Amino acid sequence: MTTSSSSDRSVDTQWMTRALRLAEQGRGFVSPNPLVGCVILDRDGEVIGEGAHLRFGDPHAEANALASVQDQASLQGATAYVTLEPCTHHGKTPPCATALAQSGVARVVIALQDPNPHVSGGGAARLQSQGIEVELGVCRVEAEEQNRAFLHWIETGLPYVQLKWAQTLDGFSADHEGNSQWISGKESRRLVHQWRSEVDAVLVGSATVLADNPRLTVRHVEGRQPRRVILDSKGTLPPTSQVFQDEFSEKTIWVTAKSAQSAQSSAAAVDPMLELLTSHPFNGTRLTVEQDDQGHCSLRHVLRALAEHDITSVMVEAGPTLAASFLRENLVDQIDVFTAPILFGKGMKAVDPAVWGMHLVEEDGGRGRLPIRFVTTESFGQDILTTYRF
Amino acid sequence: MTTSSSSDRSVDTQWMTRALRLAEQGRGFVSPNPLVGCVILDRDGEVIGEGAHLRFGDPHAEANALASVQDQASLQGATAYVTLEPCTHHGKTPPCATALAQSGVARVVIALQDPNPHVSGGGAARLQSQGIEVELGVCRVEAEEQNRAFLHWIETGLPYVQLKWAQTLDGFSADHEGNSQWISGKESRRLVHQWRSEVDAVLVGSATVLADNPRLTVRHVEGRQPRRVILDSKGTLPPTSQVFQDEFSEKTIWVTAKSAQSAQSSAAAVDPMLELLTSHPFNGTRLTVEQDDQGHCSLRHVLRALAEHDITSVMVEAGPTLAASFLRENLVDQIDVFTAPILFGKGMKAVDPAVWGMHLVEEDGGRGRLPIRFVTTESFGQDILTTYRF
Repeated sequence: MTTSSSSDRSVDTQWMTRALRLAEQGRGFVSPNPLVGCVILDRDGEVIGEGAHLRFGDPHAEANALASVQDQASLQGATAYVTLEPCTHHGKTPPCATALAQSGVARVVIALQDPNPHVSGGGAARLQSQGIEVELGVCRVEAEEQNRAFLHWIETGLPYVQLKWAQTLDGFSADHEGNSQWISGKESRRLVHQWRSEVDAVLVGSATVLADNPRLTVRHVEGRQPRRVILDSKGTLPPTSQVFQDEFSEKTIWVTAKSAQSAQSSAAAVDPMLELLTSHPFNGTRLTVEQDDQGHCSLRHVLRALAEHDITSVMVEAGPTLAASFLRENLVDQIDVFTAPILFGKGMKAVDPAVWGMHLVEEDGGRGRLPIRFVTTESFGQDILTTYRF
Repeated sequence: MTTSSSSDRSVDTQWMTRALRLAEQGRGFVSPNPLVGCVILDRDGEVIGEGAHLRFGDPHAEANALASVQDQASLQGATAYVTLEPCTHHGKTPPCATALAQSGVARVVIALQDPNPHVSGGGAARLQSQGIEVELGVCRVEAEEQNRAFLHWIETGLPYVQLKWAQTLDGFSADHEGNSQWISGKESRRLVHQWRSEVDAVLVGSATVLADNPRLTVRHVEGRQPRRVILDSKGTLPPTSQVFQDEFSEKTIWVTAKSAQSAQSSAAAVDPMLELLTSHPFNGTRLTVEQDDQGHCSLRHVLRALAEHDITSVMVEAGPTLAASFLRENLVDQIDVFTAPILFGKGMKAVDPAVWGMHLVEEDGGRGRLPIRFVTTESFGQDILTTYRF
């Protein structure tokens, strides 16, 4: 690998930034693959090809970029910018490192090493073994940010968990009668729908389904419907709930605790009629997981099971009890809070103090300082969105 | 007044921006005068003079800028940029419009018309009557923002009221034992001290003095000590309170309700010993104002009295009850909320729900939406600061 002058670096940064932008075209559609973008310049520095990985199963970014080059001769001595190290394995598509090596390019600039343990380092090495100059790490931070969820999933075996809520300026997420609909403004709600179209799954508990019977669909923006994960430890949610029977019900994942299943089975063994009644006309995915001491689904087991189902990112849209449980179990990676210019005076909190409060006293003498760091704050209409990460 | 080409305008904007920056040098020191800055360019567009109004009673910005010009001949045909319309009256200094008119400048660019009813329009007219080209309104919005408090005071006869508090992510300003010291971080506290050095007065109620015995001084930054306004309706705060006896006690304004004074007088008439005991060794300013139905100082009367004492801006650092009262009376112009990454679970709110809640039900059916608009959000260390205006 080579050292470049500072003017090279600024040119490299410029084109890698373009490749990162191209990669965004795949957001919501490539999971559990990472987002990847590619830009190819000829030896005179003119763009001759561009591409991105657009959809899971479709060609990779490098293949699309190579295919977009009109005059294949112009690839001789060209430079390719790729946001992720080219793969060396035959998956659903031929290996990109090979395709690049055979294309005639003289230099490959890579933002991020492939974190996948089966591949890591192989792509760059294969290119170098073909006499191609390789530069690693240009825009690495931006590339890590872009594939934050994917990297987390690869490294931890758990999906990236985003916990979001809306609240008033005085910290209430519902008024004293439980009404929460009108806290955040339409710009904020639109962003939440945007997020739904980008994450692999949204997650709620049975309390939310019982109380609101939500659709959890993507409505205010164009976008892809995510999986819907419903935590229903006892397995007693009504089959008529929207998430079980609307047009996206196949994408719903209904999670119950093992104890619930065995209780149901033994009841059904006694009374076949009961089996018929409890048999759900549900056509989605059923998961059963270990329960915790209180008989609830173990959240860590839930997340591990979701990761095994290729879910790399989950947005938790849960009520106060489940939100507090995720925090208590240290399973949250990012918190997004919308704050509206409202003072309710009284109402319900986004995070149940009873569940969370216990934790505080145990963990840091009641001070309650979360081990989170502030990332960004931004306004959406009259609301402000603040993002924290653990 | 003339119309300029777009390239003139961009040059004008550039130099007016410089003049606005110079004006900032006086912040905290010129009140109840406005902040004013001035830049003078010779006919070739070179800067030949700069000045600002630096301290109340000292020369105005135009006078300082004119005095800074080394070669007086270079003023012939020069252009002056002034952030506020030059004055025409003999106050503590000679009228600036006259000084400019006699200086030789050919053109005067002004950001903001003088809102002072005794002067308004006079400065520009006097300049024009001397054959000087005048342009009004360059960077007007920025100039209005810079002198927001001054303009509010001139227009309403009340000081500009900034209400600030710090809270946890779940909306508590003190834990369940009333501890509030460690909510905001040092960057936020530093900013509050910066604000103290810029506003004319800070204001608290007797509850805060009794609970915390605060100093309300400027400590974490270099800066000017503001007046300290203490609302003590009954007039019963201990003379030993820090605000009454420290080195800045002369700058303290002790506000009591009229009823308290008469109660004290009649008690003193009965027992001269009591008069001695209640006679305060206090060397600051005493104000008595009308009380409201509950016998508290009428906040509107307090603010009017402060405005008459040349206080153009007040930062309310009060506890939950007084903060709620200011909001209920629609006397707040700006809210600044610091939010720290903490979840307390339970504790005390920044705005007393009992005082504010009543108001909500009356005003908007309990929805609690404040008639405020979001202005900015910014991070200070791990805290975020959100600013709202009414």
